[in-house]
Amino acid sequence: MIQTLEINLGTRRYPIRIGQGILAGLSSCLDSRAVWVLITDETVDEFYGKELVAKWKGSTIHPIILPPGEGTKTFHQVETIVSRMLDLNVTRDSGIIALGGGVVGDVAGFCASIYLRGIAYVQVPTTLLAQVDSSVGGKTGVNLPQGKNTVGSFYQPEAVVIDTETLSTLPRRHLISGLAEVIKYGVILDYDFLTYLQRNIGEILSLQPGVIEDVITRCCALKAEIVIADEREAGLRKVLNYGHTIAHALEAVTAYDTYTHGEAVLIGMQFEAQMARELGLIKPDYLNEIQSLIQASGFDPRLDLTADLLEGLLGKMTQDKKNRGDTISFILPAGEGRTEEVLLTKKEARGLLQRL
Amino acid sequence: MIQTLEINLGTRRYPIRIGQGILAGLSSCLDSRAVWVLITDETVDEFYGKELVAKWKGSTIHPIILPPGEGTKTFHQVETIVSRMLDLNVTRDSGIIALGGGVVGDVAGFCASIYLRGIAYVQVPTTLLAQVDSSVGGKTGVNLPQGKNTVGSFYQPEAVVIDTETLSTLPRRHLISGLAEVIKYGVILDYDFLTYLQRNIGEILSLQPGVIEDVITRCCALKAEIVIADEREAGLRKVLNYGHTIAHALEAVTAYDTYTHGEAVLIGMQFEAQMARELGLIKPDYLNEIQSLIQASGFDPRLDLTADLLEGLLGKMTQDKKNRGDTISFILPAGEGRTEEVLLTKKEARGLLQRL
Repeated sequence: MIQTLEINLGTRRYPIRIGQGILAGLSSCLDSRAVWVLITDETVDEFYGKELVAKWKGSTIHPIILPPGEGTKTFHQVETIVSRMLDLNVTRDSGIIALGGGVVGDVAGFCASIYLRGIAYVQVPTTLLAQVDSSVGGKTGVNLPQGKNTVGSFYQPEAVVIDTETLSTLPRRHLISGLAEVIKYGVILDYDFLTYLQRNIGEILSLQPGVIEDVITRCCALKAEIVIADEREAGLRKVLNYGHTIAHALEAVTAYDTYTHGEAVLIGMQFEAQMARELGLIKPDYLNEIQSLIQASGFDPRLDLTADLLEGLLGKMTQDKKNRGDTISFILPAGEGRTEEVLLTKKEARGLLQRL
Repeated sequence: MIQTLEINLGTRRYPIRIGQGILAGLSSCLDSRAVWVLITDETVDEFYGKELVAKWKGSTIHPIILPPGEGTKTFHQVETIVSRMLDLNVTRDSGIIALGGGVVGDVAGFCASIYLRGIAYVQVPTTLLAQVDSSVGGKTGVNLPQGKNTVGSFYQPEAVVIDTETLSTLPRRHLISGLAEVIKYGVILDYDFLTYLQRNIGEILSLQPGVIEDVITRCCALKAEIVIADEREAGLRKVLNYGHTIAHALEAVTAYDTYTHGEAVLIGMQFEAQMARELGLIKPDYLNEIQSLIQASGFDPRLDLTADLLEGLLGKMTQDKKNRGDTISFILPAGEGRTEEVLLTKKEARGLLQRL
């Protein structure tokens, strides 16, 4: 069964289609265009890209295959892609298909947003993380040495097509990484969903079809609500940042090669839930619920916060693009399905984290 | 006297302020922000940037000075600028001031559109071309070896501030270059304005204050109308492309170092008016009017269209980002203040241009 969510952003309106095995019929899901550029990475190309191109009918498709991994999210890679597209004479009425995880989606989406000042693109996320998070909301971007996603755009896709079957080839570590964002939705927006996750964590980790589709649909719907209300991150959308202030800093100080994004988020959510407790925003019971679910993901989020590491994190956090003035913005749980933004100076954040 | 035009693009609304000597009071024209980044080039910095920074009050201003000229519009330059801004800890609530001609405006606007996924910027154009054209409409971009502005965004400034006094330091060649776009507005949109230009061409070239302010205000108002009706170049905005299909190709085949943009536009308008006549879209008298005004600009737009040059131009024109499918789009005059889009195959365009 294919489930469809409509994202209604004023003049831009697009569907998210979710189903098992829908990748095979991708061309029939898309608007008619004479030329498509398929951007994917080497790993996903082996699993799905080559077959898609081999069976493609009715229009031209040009594959552009990137090296896998976060290292691909560079300015230089973007220049290489758009340059290749110019060489292929790709015009404004062509479209990009981003087939892969968050890295492919971010880079391909950014290319779509700036190529000839913007052409259409379709997100076809193949990791759980991308399916529940990065493919919805129109955030695109690349990394600079100074920070993650420090350059990018808000640019909505023409459609999102999610084939849950692609999760069968996803390494378990990346499945757990996606679960981080799933858990986040429960904490920040929907306590019923949080309890559903507690009851079904085993089924999710074993990819039971009915459950995994429901989880993805629920997450997309929750994220869509936020994005519709606040496309450009002026306020409300910030709630999605729970766990991420610390996660982004941790990824940066570890040069993006120690933790997956989701692992960093699990660690970040663990710390930020403890901060919320320390500030009296949540009760011990609720902190325990959050912590149990994080641990049930299969990743151990405990981390020894040495003085060196703490200073490194604080240094990165003061550079976060969501900051206002000199304070660091944290989105902390503040009760079942609720959050609060807490602005801390570097000194206050240091003091609080040292007490945990 | 300061004239103000309001550009109303739905949720984004911004003023264009036009006046003599208003650069000195720039900070009072701007929204209050703690940190500004002033992006300018070495030439404009000498004339206006240094003084602006020296007298700046009430907030922090970080100058970033670029080499002058079209060669600055590169991906690499953009990376250098955003990297510098990250090093300066420039946050989302900061703004960019683009002080200079079209190159500075395009590069700085593009940086603003992608830095932390978009921050505010203010256009302070100091050339006639930028004042009447590139600063209004939110087009930003850089060049790739394959073509001009092949990467960029539609991103509206927070305000445009035009000090007509800055034209006093503009080399005559660049003044004429700006006149190209002024004449274009008359041809494509406003026959009364065309006749006004015929009568006042001397006053304009000698920068007579009242006339020059009126000309700039009229051009900005005309361009604003178009941009409001069609922000993302879906249709109507194409009329601005009169003269530009050939101009862009000519600039590309001459490696952007033979003609200024405006000179290329004057040549392009000359050819495209002749094409319109050849296709029976306009009468000989009107062609003469257009040609006389182009020649009165002080630049001789005649060009020997050798077989080699023609093929070079056709090759570039088939890569124009405004093309649909295999045809080349020309916006040709079709009567007083009116244009028509004519789509030609490469072969048809060759045949037509050979007959001129």
